[in-house]
Amino acid sequence: MPKSFSFEIHASDGKARTGALNTRRGDIRTPAFMPVGTAATVKAMLPESVRETGADILLGNTYHLMLRPGAERIARLGGLHDFMNWQRPILTDSGGFQVMSLNDLRKLSEEGVSFKSHVDGSIHHLTPERSIEIQRLLDSDITMCFDECTPFPATEDRAAASMRLSMRWAQRSREAFGERDDHLIFGIQQGSTFRDLRAESAEALRRIGFDGYAIGGLAVGEGQEAMFEVLDYAPDMLPADRPRYLMGVGKPDDIVGAVQRGVDMFDCVLPSRSGRTGQALTRRGAVNIKNARHRDDPRPLDEECTCPACRNYSRAYLHHVFRAQEIISSMLLTWHNLHYYQELMAGLRAAIAAGRLDDFVADFHTLRAGGDIEPL
Amino acid sequence: MPKSFSFEIHASDGKARTGALNTRRGDIRTPAFMPVGTAATVKAMLPESVRETGADILLGNTYHLMLRPGAERIARLGGLHDFMNWQRPILTDSGGFQVMSLNDLRKLSEEGVSFKSHVDGSIHHLTPERSIEIQRLLDSDITMCFDECTPFPATEDRAAASMRLSMRWAQRSREAFGERDDHLIFGIQQGSTFRDLRAESAEALRRIGFDGYAIGGLAVGEGQEAMFEVLDYAPDMLPADRPRYLMGVGKPDDIVGAVQRGVDMFDCVLPSRSGRTGQALTRRGAVNIKNARHRDDPRPLDEECTCPACRNYSRAYLHHVFRAQEIISSMLLTWHNLHYYQELMAGLRAAIAAGRLDDFVADFHTLRAGGDIEPL
Repeated sequence: MPKSFSFEIHASDGKARTGALNTRRGDIRTPAFMPVGTAATVKAMLPESVRETGADILLGNTYHLMLRPGAERIARLGGLHDFMNWQRPILTDSGGFQVMSLNDLRKLSEEGVSFKSHVDGSIHHLTPERSIEIQRLLDSDITMCFDECTPFPATEDRAAASMRLSMRWAQRSREAFGERDDHLIFGIQQGSTFRDLRAESAEALRRIGFDGYAIGGLAVGEGQEAMFEVLDYAPDMLPADRPRYLMGVGKPDDIVGAVQRGVDMFDCVLPSRSGRTGQALTRRGAVNIKNARHRDDPRPLDEECTCPACRNYSRAYLHHVFRAQEIISSMLLTWHNLHYYQELMAGLRAAIAAGRLDDFVADFHTLRAGGDIEPL
Repeated sequence: MPKSFSFEIHASDGKARTGALNTRRGDIRTPAFMPVGTAATVKAMLPESVRETGADILLGNTYHLMLRPGAERIARLGGLHDFMNWQRPILTDSGGFQVMSLNDLRKLSEEGVSFKSHVDGSIHHLTPERSIEIQRLLDSDITMCFDECTPFPATEDRAAASMRLSMRWAQRSREAFGERDDHLIFGIQQGSTFRDLRAESAEALRRIGFDGYAIGGLAVGEGQEAMFEVLDYAPDMLPADRPRYLMGVGKPDDIVGAVQRGVDMFDCVLPSRSGRTGQALTRRGAVNIKNARHRDDPRPLDEECTCPACRNYSRAYLHHVFRAQEIISSMLLTWHNLHYYQELMAGLRAAIAAGRLDDFVADFHTLRAGGDIEPL
């Protein structure tokens, strides 16, 4: 790990750990949830508001930013932090996941991927070397290896071939990254739902050597049960003294289960996307604010929540502005959801530190089961 | 004027005056600009941010609120202030202007207007009595008379008939309002661009007696020159010791010219609407942020502006988020525009107080003429 970074584990409870990834741009308390700032903005939020929710780090998307406004442009303008007015740490993905999702619009080879831009139809190439270069241009604090997110379901042969390609790309990514004193690079474990492949992948990554290790290829349609089965062993295969990051996860109960299994970092568009589509995530489950039942309800989304949406507005108001398609609806519900996620993370951290994670998780499920509101 | 209200003129300079309309919900410094909160939200802004720009009062729209979420519903929920989390004064229009704009969808009679809802096609009736009742249900601090905004151009006969109908409706509005200790009602002068009709309307309103007087039927397509011609005499016809409110105005130079002619209050959707369509209004004129010239520009919209958009973001960023259709684009540009409008009003108030309004206006025009940016 570069010398200006450190990862400290302050306490653990079962497999769960709490601590901090200390960086030159600030500390990331773990377990951590990273809001997604795809196009250099966490949608419908000012960055100071994202910080107010308790976020220590954001995720930026290489794929979106390389296409618009362009990585070289952001570099000329001083890097992504200044550009989007977020001076705390930023983790960037490698672009691999989004490019793979393009399906018919992309072509995969040993060298990398060619694809058509969703913005203007132009042709682009992404290789491990170019992905790392883009992330450097963005001045990302945590760079991710370029990899292929293996589609689900995959046969073991297909998953093995895909994972091994990702491991060759991990080697190239690591070489392209070089040694940088104040920046981190994470490797990404693949192997789908096959234990042997996960082990092989973990071993390949450890041999290369990374500052942190992500678990990729999950939350791609396999369902929570299958995901948890993988998480019962996959985190243990990764170095215990380095942060473990479960990519693209997830729903609140996914996060809780993954923390119990030893994961330290998460990112997901769910809280922000749900906010824009009128779904509030609360301790008691989800509230679909568009439902007519909220039309006359003077209560807040969650009586005990301290976010601005809950402190200042009724469900009736939130229902009204959602129906009227007012921007404030996205602003308030996104704020609430991100606040709820950060509160959940803070609760998990405190419970691990106190050695009472099991109680916390039991309460978490009890409150949700008793919720008089729409199931998530 | 009800006893819990007072209108104080602290200084005047030529016809311009500065002072305050003091209300139980706070003081409104005049000349005042009222941001428009059509559907119980100033679009893309949290109310605390609207307040940060310097706004003392908002405008709410009877037409929109009666259709959705409904005035009775807002009353059950505690009134518009609690509903939308704005505890300072609110002025509501009467719904007349919006209903008249429906053209083929409405039917006018001596009694009032019938129209079809743009929300669900249902039929509604609006009369002076119902308009005042709705505004009471909203708990509006300043109620506006129900009137017909005379279309432009109008023949003198048509303008006279329309104005006289509005004066009969003003009488009915005043009677429906009754005497309320802590709420104001404003009359609305009509008469199109005809001086005699403006005088007749002013006289009719004075006879009825209102707490303040609006100038209606301007900014409806007659152009600034014709509007200023009317404003050369119309404000003088209204009581000097009561606030004068020019409805639906306007562009920054419209406001400056109207203040010079004795107007105290304004409202307009321009700053918020322009913000959502990518137009920033600045001391040097308008910036169309979508133009490619801003793509690489590291400068803020306005070097001297202290709003969050100018303090924290480059034109390049604002260009990017506008092109990417990100909500933060509307949030930041609206904030900037409302901030600029409130700064302009503060500048006008200070200049009047210092007896140097002419200098202020000369500087205002010089700065705009020298602007290296797109004309408004």
